[in-house]
Amino acid sequence: MNTVNIGMVGYKFMGKAHSNAYRALPMFFPHSLKPSMNVICGRNLEAVAAAGKQFGWKEHTSDWRDLLDRDDIDLIDINAPSNAHKEIAIAAAKAGKHLYCEKPLALSLADSREMLEAAEKAGVKHMVGFNYRFTPAIMLAKQLIEEGRLGDIYHFRAWFLQDWIVDPSFPLVWRLQQEIAGSGALGDLGAHLIDLSHYLIGDISEVIGMSETFIKERPLPDESGGLSAITGDTAATGPVTVDDATLFLARFANGALGTFEATRFATGHRSTNSFEINGSKGSVIFDFERMNELQVHFSEDEADVQGFRRVLATDPPHAYSDAWWPAGHPIGYEHTFTHAFLELLDAIQKDRQPSPSFSEGVKCQQVLEAVELSIKDRKWIQVSSL
Amino acid sequence: MNTVNIGMVGYKFMGKAHSNAYRALPMFFPHSLKPSMNVICGRNLEAVAAAGKQFGWKEHTSDWRDLLDRDDIDLIDINAPSNAHKEIAIAAAKAGKHLYCEKPLALSLADSREMLEAAEKAGVKHMVGFNYRFTPAIMLAKQLIEEGRLGDIYHFRAWFLQDWIVDPSFPLVWRLQQEIAGSGALGDLGAHLIDLSHYLIGDISEVIGMSETFIKERPLPDESGGLSAITGDTAATGPVTVDDATLFLARFANGALGTFEATRFATGHRSTNSFEINGSKGSVIFDFERMNELQVHFSEDEADVQGFRRVLATDPPHAYSDAWWPAGHPIGYEHTFTHAFLELLDAIQKDRQPSPSFSEGVKCQQVLEAVELSIKDRKWIQVSSL
Amino acid sequence: MNTVNIGMVGYKFMGKAHSNAYRALPMFFPHSLKPSMNVICGRNLEAVAAAGKQFGWKEHTSDWRDLLDRDDIDLIDINAPSNAHKEIAIAAAKAGKHLYCEKPLALSLADSREMLEAAEKAGVKHMVGFNYRFTPAIMLAKQLIEEGRLGDIYHFRAWFLQDWIVDPSFPLVWRLQQEIAGSGALGDLGAHLIDLSHYLIGDISEVIGMSETFIKERPLPDESGGLSAITGDTAATGPVTVDDATLFLARFANGALGTFEATRFATGHRSTNSFEINGSKGSVIFDFERMNELQVHFSEDEADVQGFRRVLATDPPHAYSDAWWPAGHPIGYEHTFTHAFLELLDAIQKDRQPSPSFSEGVKCQQVLEAVELSIKDRKWIQVSSL
Amino acid sequence: MNTVNIGMVGYKFMGKAHSNAYRALPMFFPHSLKPSMNVICGRNLEAVAAAGKQFGWKEHTSDWRDLLDRDDIDLIDINAPSNAHKEIAIAAAKAGKHLYCEKPLALSLADSREMLEAAEKAGVKHMVGFNYRFTPAIMLAKQLIEEGRLGDIYHFRAWFLQDWIVDPSFPLVWRLQQEIAGSGALGDLGAHLIDLSHYLIGDISEVIGMSETFIKERPLPDESGGLSAITGDTAATGPVTVDDATLFLARFANGALGTFEATRFATGHRSTNSFEINGSKGSVIFDFERMNELQVHFSEDEADVQGFRRVLATDPPHAYSDAWWPAGHPIGYEHTFTHAFLELLDAIQKDRQPSPSFSEGVKCQQVLEAVELSIKDRKWIQVSSL
Repeated sequence: MNTVNIGMVGYKFMGKAHSNAYRALPMFFPHSLKPSMNVICGRNLEAVAAAGKQFGWKEHTSDWRDLLDRDDIDLIDINAPSNAHKEIAIAAAKAGKHLYCEKPLALSLADSREMLEAAEKAGVKHMVGFNYRFTPAIMLAKQLIEEGRLGDIYHFRAWFLQDWIVDPSFPLVWRLQQEIAGSGALGDLGAHLIDLSHYLIGDISEVIGMSETFIKERPLPDESGGLSAITGDTAATGPVTVDDATLFLARFANGALGTFEATRFATGHRSTNSFEINGSKGSVIFDFERMNELQVHFSEDEADVQGFRRVLATDPPHAYSDAWWPAGHPIGYEHTFTHAFLELLDAIQKDRQPSPSFSEGVKCQQVLEAVELSIKDRKWIQVSSL
Repeated sequence: MNTVNIGMVGYKFMGKAHSNAYRALPMFFPHSLKPSMNVICGRNLEAVAAAGKQFGWKEHTSDWRDLLDRDDIDLIDINAPSNAHKEIAIAAAKAGKHLYCEKPLALSLADSREMLEAAEKAGVKHMVGFNYRFTPAIMLAKQLIEEGRLGDIYHFRAWFLQDWIVDPSFPLVWRLQQEIAGSGALGDLGAHLIDLSHYLIGDISEVIGMSETFIKERPLPDESGGLSAITGDTAATGPVTVDDATLFLARFANGALGTFEATRFATGHRSTNSFEINGSKGSVIFDFERMNELQVHFSEDEADVQGFRRVLATDPPHAYSDAWWPAGHPIGYEHTFTHAFLELLDAIQKDRQPSPSFSEGVKCQQVLEAVELSIKDRKWIQVSSL
Repeated sequence: MNTVNIGMVGYKFMGKAHSNAYRALPMFFPHSLKPSMNVICGRNLEAVAAAGKQFGWKEHTSDWRDLLDRDDIDLIDINAPSNAHKEIAIAAAKAGKHLYCEKPLALSLADSREMLEAAEKAGVKHMVGFNYRFTPAIMLAKQLIEEGRLGDIYHFRAWFLQDWIVDPSFPLVWRLQQEIAGSGALGDLGAHLIDLSHYLIGDISEVIGMSETFIKERPLPDESGGLSAITGDTAATGPVTVDDATLFLARFANGALGTFEATRFATGHRSTNSFEINGSKGSVIFDFERMNELQVHFSEDEADVQGFRRVLATDPPHAYSDAWWPAGHPIGYEHTFTHAFLELLDAIQKDRQPSPSFSEGVKCQQVLEAVELSIKDRKWIQVSSL
Repeated sequence: MNTVNIGMVGYKFMGKAHSNAYRALPMFFPHSLKPSMNVICGRNLEAVAAAGKQFGWKEHTSDWRDLLDRDDIDLIDINAPSNAHKEIAIAAAKAGKHLYCEKPLALSLADSREMLEAAEKAGVKHMVGFNYRFTPAIMLAKQLIEEGRLGDIYHFRAWFLQDWIVDPSFPLVWRLQQEIAGSGALGDLGAHLIDLSHYLIGDISEVIGMSETFIKERPLPDESGGLSAITGDTAATGPVTVDDATLFLARFANGALGTFEATRFATGHRSTNSFEINGSKGSVIFDFERMNELQVHFSEDEADVQGFRRVLATDPPHAYSDAWWPAGHPIGYEHTFTHAFLELLDAIQKDRQPSPSFSEGVKCQQVLEAVELSIKDRKWIQVSSL
């Protein structure tokens, strides 16, 4: 068998990104298992039918339970809103399906742990959607750290800055409602930074944070989708129940100090997903808006020519570069998903767990919850205490 | 009919880029005509079979003439080496097929004119592969100029800098042989700059250039493909018969002054395809290595906050942004091809000529030939004299 | 009287910077009062004699008390090590001398308050050495905020990154000893960031921080001066008693959220003194390594050309630009001191308090002490409680 | 004698820059000879008196001939308008005075040769005001080339872009009049680029250029000074008799190819004085607006971390860094003059010719004239033929 049969739950922003990745794999990574895009699922039958046609799925359905009993589904890809992840993932695991679940894994640490347990008990492959790990420039940072070329790590500072809700008249879309999204800037943006810190630096010991909802009441939307929305005519408003911005300090197990900032109120930043790492022998700086670049400094360079190097990770030595275009030709956001699914299919093929697995999703959730608790209780929280 | 049946001649770097564009269109531009990837053609039957399978073509063949008589081919996409363009294009036009031809259109101005005539006589659609026109940030530059927001244009300076053959032991691949490639840095890189200058500024009146082949003899390759190659074991070498670098000055019909530089000897530049335009009211700067950005300056900005703005062309007001990802999420090199083929299919659907058509290919060839003549005769050449 | 007679205590890095400023004033700001460089003072008589000759002082002495009774001293400029500030300042105030004191004002909040009281009681002018306020690009940021062009302020993030002690063999200079320096990265670098936040954003309500001394033991120096040192031959070492790095979160009185990071362990950063401010209508980004530039974004710019502008603050509309060079010609670090002393002399001339006065020094000290307490007690500290 | 007695002719922009350098030398370079600022000279007695007082000159005069016979003048510094250089320099040489002359040395190659001959015949020291050579980041570029760290040089491209006369209502100041300024953008800006190319790359063999005066008629000024001017009330206009922009191609004696562009019509560029050099082993990029930085690339860096390094030339290994501020603290435009005069005084002290001497001024003039002739005759000109 060199095909993996897929059922996907969700069909909006992430559904599109995942579908594109499935379509790209056989062309750019011909030695990978072939994803077969069998069934797409969404609650609005008309909308999911249109998406399925557009994205290239063979069938569609409005009930994700339909996917469980079908023999022609090996993998269930969950990118529905966050509050639906848990139920689907556990049922799918019980049905013996491999799992890819978008982040955040669940609305709570407890839920995410249940998901991990279910997946482990079922013996299926499980992967969480931390797609940014699969950016070649970030993989270069990882490699430099692992090879000791940055030395001991002293500092990790990361910020994910957006500005799409700075306007107070922007409506109350689902991402601003706790019961659906679980969290605001922290869960949406901060989760990516936390995962990158786990990937690059290691475990976080303790955290303390602060957060704010700058605009506490917003107009109700008529209709919403993805990150944009249309404001209704009526004057009706509702409360924003998630954080607009969350910041926290962290201490890593290896002694490094961390700062994290996630905000949707950084005017001028469409999506600045950025970090810097300082080690005893070198430093790296990354910004996803220039995702093909990593700035790298080595303190052992000759004294008269030390400086941050702008490394283009499109060159031959860099991850996946042989699959794409010649040196100096940029790849884009969607390629991170293609690389992520390549990892998943490779793991299925070789019967190993992919990385990041649900364990990483749980670890991230644990930090998220520690940050939230540190804000609520206004004190440092040991991550391991949760 | 909402499908366009395609036969494609060529299956390497450009063949892959074009195939990807055909695959992307129905997903990201669902209202476009659908490209049907019917037949791929290449001289090496085994290699083209593998490429066809990988890229998703239904059939393959080693003889492009096979495509001419088939009713299920509407469009012939020519991305074979440059010396094959003319014969294929003219035969395809005579067979009534629409044409997409990679640049340079042909090895000579005369040949390119024959191709244009053939296409016009046959009444088919014809388009030339100046894909960089379809970069959203470049389209923003075009729009600013057309709306008069940069004022009168005084300067255009452009440079396409690569470094893949700086090493003297890099072998004599086909791109370094005049009889196949037609030209070196000028035809390969300079052609893109010339076309962008036509697109953005307008006609060029006169030119004078200089060129150099820094490394005149190189080892013969064992095997070559795309931009890289493996050096053979033997000590055999051969002469480089194209330019390593060509630079020229130009005067535009509208009075603007131009400088152009195309080189494969700019160490550190993997593929810096860059231009700057200065007008009486504003300026723009572009670099394809940061293809999602355009730097824009307006002299009518308030005096205390004037400066070049780093505009991310991924925002909603920018071309094609609604088809791709949210604001701030980069797209890559390959998307320029998707946009180009969208233009071609739209033109077929609406029964109009696409842009850039073969006329633009001829215009570019005319400037290339004027530059070459100016180098040979060491004097200014009027472009219209050719 | 259009001359101010100066006695200066200190003659190293800051002594040189201040002397240069006094020398520059009459030439570049001819309408200012004239500083008369009368007496320079330092404990090492030979060294201070040499410095006095080099910097252009008329006399020198090894005892700062000599300055107190002289009628030909109007202003005492204190840039001796931090632990000497208090005694000199209070004595000088009592002697009726105007005061300029380098930051940090003192080793403790209590001491700094005594200094402020003494200066106020004596009715002299008093100014603290927060020279970065006088950077034209930072003054532009201030102006944009004051004119409401950034709207409500949501975020202030600041980092002062250096790397001069990353090497564990760098010796134990005075700046690494608490009893002389008072504090490490926090007091040296963080103090500047705190003052800039006061200048630009306003009062800080509460803070919580963390800090670390990464290298706890260092070789003893043979001789030290400024920021460099020569390691002695012996194997003797001593404990580092200040922080290598301090980070903290802050909430401002106006509701803005702040992050601060001061470190001497950011490999590759010689002296990155940087901040970003996000408001409801715009944002600014500053980095002192490119001190002539301010990046400015306005959300009310036309939608298709929004982006951070790189504003050169050397243009005519910017502070002090008419005193220096034509537009586009950079000024340097030392100019900030010239501007600071211009403010002081102007204040003396007009019989008003200069800004920043010792009050600002006390405010900064209050935050520094709140941060230290928050680290010690591992909890949020209300700044006003100190 | 450790003092050099100076008489200076000129008191505007350059007079101020030179005066500042004389004042800075004893403080920052205490081992240098001491410049004694004896007499400043300018045609407007009132204005030169004011300037002399402001800049710190002991005496002033309105007749430069007054300087010739005085024993207390060792060096004559000529920064009057270009059309006055020749007469003053030759007279001063005959009077046995050392010479510093601003660029361009003269209005013609023949004149500059006469000046060089006069200086050589008189046996005085002579230096030309190519201050940019004394930028530490440019000196780093020079060192890298001389040490072979960039390998063989293939490309030099340079552009000096300003925008101060883009506005057609900007008046006809002396810099726009051929009889006073000699040349426009070419002589003012291009001359600096040519000199840098001589310094960094070597002799130029042949050139071909183009130029344009975009705005051919401008209002007459009421009063003018430096780079700005106030338009008169009357409607009177006069012809612009110099070039607004000049571009040229060059071939260097060592085989490198060069492009040069000098323009005052590059909207958004206050003073972008920039070059890039590509060699077989490395490249450098410089922009004076960020004068403390040099971007450096080495092709022998490890393959996975190649990229342009942003080197801050304020670090200890860099020229003059020990005289100024700690690493990472920017210096400014004026420091280049201080360094230049340090070279001159050192040459006087050691009885050697300083560099760049008038020979370099002549060489630059030769290229300028070759460019002008190439424009007039529309053909390549051998520099050595002039």
